[in-house]
Amino acid sequence: MELTQITHIDNVRLSDDGRAVRILDQSRLPNETVYLELSQAEDLYEAIHALRVRGAPAIGIFAGYAMYVLARQTKAAQFGDFIQECRRHHAYLNSSRPTAVNLKHMLDRMLAVAESMPCMDIDSILESMRQAAIAIHQEDITMCTAISRHGLSLVKEGDGILTHCNAGPLATSRYGTALGPLFLAKEEGITLHAWCDETRPLLQGARLTAYELQRAGIDCTLICDNMASIVMKEGKINACFVGCDRVARNGDTANKIGTSGVAILARHYGIPFYVLGPSSTIDFTCPDGDHIPIELRDGEEIKSKFFEQPSSLPEVKCYNPAFDVTDHDLITAIVTERGICYPPFEDSLAALFGRKREV
Amino acid sequence: MELTQITHIDNVRLSDDGRAVRILDQSRLPNETVYLELSQAEDLYEAIHALRVRGAPAIGIFAGYAMYVLARQTKAAQFGDFIQECRRHHAYLNSSRPTAVNLKHMLDRMLAVAESMPCMDIDSILESMRQAAIAIHQEDITMCTAISRHGLSLVKEGDGILTHCNAGPLATSRYGTALGPLFLAKEEGITLHAWCDETRPLLQGARLTAYELQRAGIDCTLICDNMASIVMKEGKINACFVGCDRVARNGDTANKIGTSGVAILARHYGIPFYVLGPSSTIDFTCPDGDHIPIELRDGEEIKSKFFEQPSSLPEVKCYNPAFDVTDHDLITAIVTERGICYPPFEDSLAALFGRKREV
Repeated sequence: MELTQITHIDNVRLSDDGRAVRILDQSRLPNETVYLELSQAEDLYEAIHALRVRGAPAIGIFAGYAMYVLARQTKAAQFGDFIQECRRHHAYLNSSRPTAVNLKHMLDRMLAVAESMPCMDIDSILESMRQAAIAIHQEDITMCTAISRHGLSLVKEGDGILTHCNAGPLATSRYGTALGPLFLAKEEGITLHAWCDETRPLLQGARLTAYELQRAGIDCTLICDNMASIVMKEGKINACFVGCDRVARNGDTANKIGTSGVAILARHYGIPFYVLGPSSTIDFTCPDGDHIPIELRDGEEIKSKFFEQPSSLPEVKCYNPAFDVTDHDLITAIVTERGICYPPFEDSLAALFGRKREV
Repeated sequence: MELTQITHIDNVRLSDDGRAVRILDQSRLPNETVYLELSQAEDLYEAIHALRVRGAPAIGIFAGYAMYVLARQTKAAQFGDFIQECRRHHAYLNSSRPTAVNLKHMLDRMLAVAESMPCMDIDSILESMRQAAIAIHQEDITMCTAISRHGLSLVKEGDGILTHCNAGPLATSRYGTALGPLFLAKEEGITLHAWCDETRPLLQGARLTAYELQRAGIDCTLICDNMASIVMKEGKINACFVGCDRVARNGDTANKIGTSGVAILARHYGIPFYVLGPSSTIDFTCPDGDHIPIELRDGEEIKSKFFEQPSSLPEVKCYNPAFDVTDHDLITAIVTERGICYPPFEDSLAALFGRKREV
């Protein structure tokens, strides 16, 4: 069995004949479940550009397979010609989404594999590239599995888990990060109940998180963001699991807008609030949340995106920050693939990563 | 000048010729501003039924004018025939929205005016009904003005005010209740900055509150509900003003879903949280919030209403409570037309209404 076939959500993998990248087109979820097999450079570029594949880890996995699929179409007989082609593919794919750091990292890694084998025949290089692409995928699965395992240790049979935004298999591989414990629990016969904030304005919770959970047969209930308070008050929530875009050295955590509000409600109701993410999101060069810039997006997203008609007058101003920062003192623990960190995070994060605390 | 012409939002009044009820069709806001002049019973019924006029006070005002407009179409020469017609109008209009208590109260009041004048000619009765309808409207304006005046005393020039849902002129008369201080401030040359939660799932904040404020030239910014935390953290908010559907004897307050979350955030950030409403919403027979039933609405509202396509899979469950209860200990003060009550509310509310505290 190809390792990619054990994912709950078959979001990115090599096609069965190895000649194409097979993706679940995320841009058409949840109303249409469409799989695409892409082998032409223009189609692979477009899939990233049009967000058919999204989530930094998933884009990285896609990039690995895309480099392999394009490389094997070569007619070059000489190493030099072959490497020139690979560099062209690298530059072209990298231009599809210029701010996606993980995309460039994985393209670099695939190119480096080819460049490191000047004495080998093309077929051997291609086989090494195929293995490198699978390794990128496998490493993500290993990371997600470890996070999920640590996260699952924090809850128990029957618990209700509130989630915000999407950090599940669609954005990563297999289990996902913040959603990982729910998928792992399902595999192990442990029943958890998921409560998904719809996550305005882009509705990732409704469109993606609820989709993933429902498809996996995990009990899940969709709520509007402003209903988190009442479900907590009614005793439905035993823990909150959220992802993270960037964690500062002191534990302050940037994540999707609304996350800090969930953390404050959880504190009020005495519910543990957990941040889950790969260790690569911990930025030891960033002392605290005040040093994390917050992206402001076009206000039209609030009024017009997804709606049949604009929800408000054209002249009404909108304020649309895409992220917020949750203060470290609202976070019960930070869960990475390396283990679980408890406050004070300045110490526990540093210890987990074998660093001296920077003062 | 007819008193109804001084409203900022000309939502309900008699037409200039006195033969029709003129309304702003709220069902078409904010994308279309359409005024209707209604004089036929079927059209008046439909306006309530289809939510072209909404908000308990506004429906009450509408009912008063509707009874008058229908009554003056009479061809009856005898009091008995005239009263029979009025009773038919009463029953018919009352059936348009059976759960709207205020509708029935105001229809009763108009019918009682007619029934109390058996010795008078029809023209005199009609004139008394016209005056009664204007009185209903005037009383609401007086009430809203008093609430607005008390509320305005709680803030100062330049303050940022967070609002949730809609308790403005569209739902009432003139100033509204929770929004009242903003409109009164505008009249008095005091600058306040409004921040409107869009208020999912029915978007009253985006569709109605932002509409009213923008039309009145009051600085207003629309945010998603989950952005309340970041705007508070960024120091943009000096006070929260929300309405109320029912206030228990101890101050626990039922209001639009999400209100309790705003209150918890306000407490976390040290921002005062004010509830504004007419004294008629204080229910001295209700000891606390546990005794306030919460309406659960169809989950499809979350996934499908207003959207071009459903936001989530058909099989995904939704939980859709229409209201939540804000604990009294999160409320800084409750503002009614009779004055401002501070904690402990059990005492202050009772004192304001000349009641002995019930124990």
